[in-house]
Amino acid sequence: MAAAVRADAGAAQGASESGVRVDARRLRSRIETLSTFGRPAGGSFADGVSRIAYSDADVAGRRYVMAEMKAAGLQPRIDPAGNIFARRAGSDSTLPPILFGSHIDSVPSGGNFDGDLGSLSALGVLEALDAARVTTRHPLEMVVWAHEEGFAFGRGLACSRIVAGDFSRGDLDEVWNGMRRSDAIRRIGGDPDRIADAQRPKGSHHCYIELHIEQGGTLERAGVPVGVVEGIVAIDKYDAVVTGFANHAGTTPIAERHDALLAAAHLTVAVRDAVTRLPGRQVGTVGHIEVTPNSPNVIPGTARLSIELRDLSPGKLGTMMDDIRARAKEIAATTQTTIEFSRTMQAASATAAAEVQGAIERAARALNLQSMRLPSGAGHDAQMMALIGPMGMIFVPSVGGVSHSPKELTSWDDCARGADVLGRTVLEMDNVHS
Amino acid sequence: MAAAVRADAGAAQGASESGVRVDARRLRSRIETLSTFGRPAGGSFADGVSRIAYSDADVAGRRYVMAEMKAAGLQPRIDPAGNIFARRAGSDSTLPPILFGSHIDSVPSGGNFDGDLGSLSALGVLEALDAARVTTRHPLEMVVWAHEEGFAFGRGLACSRIVAGDFSRGDLDEVWNGMRRSDAIRRIGGDPDRIADAQRPKGSHHCYIELHIEQGGTLERAGVPVGVVEGIVAIDKYDAVVTGFANHAGTTPIAERHDALLAAAHLTVAVRDAVTRLPGRQVGTVGHIEVTPNSPNVIPGTARLSIELRDLSPGKLGTMMDDIRARAKEIAATTQTTIEFSRTMQAASATAAAEVQGAIERAARALNLQSMRLPSGAGHDAQMMALIGPMGMIFVPSVGGVSHSPKELTSWDDCARGADVLGRTVLEMDNVHS
Repeated sequence: MAAAVRADAGAAQGASESGVRVDARRLRSRIETLSTFGRPAGGSFADGVSRIAYSDADVAGRRYVMAEMKAAGLQPRIDPAGNIFARRAGSDSTLPPILFGSHIDSVPSGGNFDGDLGSLSALGVLEALDAARVTTRHPLEMVVWAHEEGFAFGRGLACSRIVAGDFSRGDLDEVWNGMRRSDAIRRIGGDPDRIADAQRPKGSHHCYIELHIEQGGTLERAGVPVGVVEGIVAIDKYDAVVTGFANHAGTTPIAERHDALLAAAHLTVAVRDAVTRLPGRQVGTVGHIEVTPNSPNVIPGTARLSIELRDLSPGKLGTMMDDIRARAKEIAATTQTTIEFSRTMQAASATAAAEVQGAIERAARALNLQSMRLPSGAGHDAQMMALIGPMGMIFVPSVGGVSHSPKELTSWDDCARGADVLGRTVLEMDNVHS
Repeated sequence: MAAAVRADAGAAQGASESGVRVDARRLRSRIETLSTFGRPAGGSFADGVSRIAYSDADVAGRRYVMAEMKAAGLQPRIDPAGNIFARRAGSDSTLPPILFGSHIDSVPSGGNFDGDLGSLSALGVLEALDAARVTTRHPLEMVVWAHEEGFAFGRGLACSRIVAGDFSRGDLDEVWNGMRRSDAIRRIGGDPDRIADAQRPKGSHHCYIELHIEQGGTLERAGVPVGVVEGIVAIDKYDAVVTGFANHAGTTPIAERHDALLAAAHLTVAVRDAVTRLPGRQVGTVGHIEVTPNSPNVIPGTARLSIELRDLSPGKLGTMMDDIRARAKEIAATTQTTIEFSRTMQAASATAAAEVQGAIERAARALNLQSMRLPSGAGHDAQMMALIGPMGMIFVPSVGGVSHSPKELTSWDDCARGADVLGRTVLEMDNVHS
C-alpha cells in the first residue's frame, strides 16, 4: 500500500476542522463512570479497578460504553470475537475506514486510564465531528477491543489478534477459571461458531490509530504532552532453571555448596548488566523467582526465574541473551550448579507506519502541542493491527510512569489533549491517500 | 563442678571392659525396622522417612522403641514433656547418672540415621554392658528426646528444652496443624499439667553424651571415622525486607527502576562474600526468598529474604552481619530501594565439656579409631543439655555430607563404630570424678 500526503486536496468537508474539539468534561465524566464497574467495594476512583476480561464487571462496563455509543447516535456491533465496533459514514463509501479505539478490560488492581482513555476518546472524537458538522472522506470506525490484557487464559489471546487472523480454533477450547474460552466469548456477546468471520483482511482499513497512556515516565520527565510511538518493542521471554543441591544450611561447608539461589542471584545481576552494557532504551527484567525448598535453614536446591527482554530491535535482544548465556556459564561453574534456559515467549516488534507518525506530529503541531517520538515498551492491540495495515499510536503522560496499578494517573488536561490529537490525527489521515 | 580424670581408680567393675561391644547386626535391624514408621507408601529404606513429631508415625515409632527397651529388660518412663527415659543402676546409687541418647522424630522427607542412630545405639550400649556383665559406678540413663526437629509448632520447642527449663507455660497453648501443643504432648504420653516436673536441675546428671551423624561432609572428606564435637555453633537469623516499587516491566526505563529483586540478588551475593571474607568454618545462607508481585512482566516491588549465620564464635556472627549491613546500604543506594533487617532468632553456641571431649578421644583411641575435632553446624538436644551439665557429642560420617533428605546415609560399619565409641565413652566418663 503506497501512501502519500496531499496538502490540501480532498480534505474533509465541514464547518471548521479546527473547531473539532473533544468534550473534555464529558470524557472525564465517562472515565469516572466506567471506573465504577470493577471498583473495589467501598473504594473510590483512586482505588483503581479490577475489570478482568469476561468478568461481570467487564460485561457491565461494555454495556455502559455501548449505551453511551447509542446515545451518541452510533450503532454498536459486536463481532464474533467480542470486539465492539461502530461506524460513521464518510463522503466516499468506496474508501476503507479509518479505525481507532482501544480496550476497556483491565489487569487485576489496575488503573482507570489504561485502555479506557483511548476507547472513550474515540467516542468523543466521533461526537466532536458531529458537533462540528465535519464529514470525512473515509468512513470512520471506532473500536473497543475485547480482552487486551493478557490476564485471562494462558496465552493471553487478545481479541484483536483474532481480527488479525493470528489464532487457531483450538484456542477456543482453552479453559481458564472454570470457563471455556468459547463460552467466555459468548458471555460478552461474541459468536465462537463464526469466529473466523471476525478476521479482517489486509487493507480492509485505511489505518489504525490508538490513543493510550504511556505507562512509562518518559513524557512526564521530558515535559512533553504528546508521544508519537515509533513502534512496539519485540519481547523475548525465557525461563532459567538453576539446579544445585539442597542440603543442611548448618552442616554443609561453604566450599561444598551447590546453592541454586546464589547462582540465581548472580544471574539476576547478570541480566541487568547485559541490558545496561549496550547503549539504547532496551529493558530487561527478572520479575519472577521460585526457589525450592525455600526454607531458611536449607541451602536452595533449585531456582527458577523469568527473564524478559524488550527492545525495538530483535537483534539487540539476541545480543543481550548471548551475553546472559555466557555469564551463566561462568556462574554455573563458580557456584557448582547447572543453568538451563528455555524460551517461553517471543513477540515480534511492530513498527508504526511513517505516514501515521507524521500525521500525529502534524496534529500535535496544529494544536500547538510539543511532541516526541518514543518506543512503546508495552504491548497493545495496535501490535496486532500492524499485521494487517498501517498503524500509529499517540501516548499521553503517565504521572510518575506508574501503570497497571490503582496509582495509575494521567491529568485530565493531558487526557483532553490526547483526545484532541486523536481527532486531529484522524483528520490528517483522512488526507493521506490510500 | 570440678572434674578430673582418674586413670584406674574406681573403674567400672565387670568381666571385661574391652569386651563391651554393641551388637551391630541388631543395631542395623532396629534402624531398619524403625524406618518403616513414617516410610512413604510403597517405598523402601532408601526412600527415607517422614516421622514428624506428634504424628501417628512418631507415636508408632516411639511405641516400637519402648517395646525394644522392655525386651532388653529396661523400664521406659515418659516424663511430663514426652521424653522417654530408662535407667540402669550403677554400683554407687549416690552418684548422678550418665545420660545418653538422641531423638527419633524426623523432618518431612528426612533420612533414617538422624537421631535414630544415637537413640538405638544408646539401647545397644546398655545391652552390651549387660552382655559383658559390666557394672558402672554411676547409674546410666538412656533418653529418647521428643520433638527434636524444629518442624512442628512455630518456635520448634524441643522437649529437651523443657528439661533444661527453657520454656514457659504459654508455649503449651500454641496451635500447629489444628493441634494444641498441650494435646500434642498428651498424644505422646506426656502430662502437660505437670510440665514443670520435667525440668531437671543443674548437676542432676554426671554428663550428657550424644552419638549423631555429622550431617556434613568433613569426616568423610578427611577419611576419619569419629568426630569429637567441640561445640554447637551459635545461630543468628535475620529477615531482610527490600522495598522497591512495582512497575511495568516494559514501560519503565532502567534508570527509573526500584527493583527489589535486583537488590535482593546483590544482597544474597553480599551474604556469601561476608561469610567467605573471613578465615574459618563459619557458614551463612540465604535459603528463603519471597517476591511480590512475582510476575514476569512486573518489576518486583518487594523482596523478603532470610539470612542465617552460624559459627562457634558469636563475635564472628556480629562481624559478618556488620559487613552485610554495610553492603546493604550501598546496594539500597544504587538500586534505589530500602533494605531493613530484623533479627528473627538467636541461638547461643554450646561448648562441649573438655572432659567429655577427652573421654571421646580416649574411647576412639582405645578402639583403634582415628578421631578429629570439629564444630557441629546443626543444632542438637545436646545444646539444651549444655545448659544444665557437661555435654559432649560423637559424630560419625555422613556419605556425601547429605542430611535431612532421604539420601542421608551412614555406612553400617560407621554406625557400629559410633555405637562402640559411645559405649566406651560412657565407661571413660564413669571414671571421671563428679
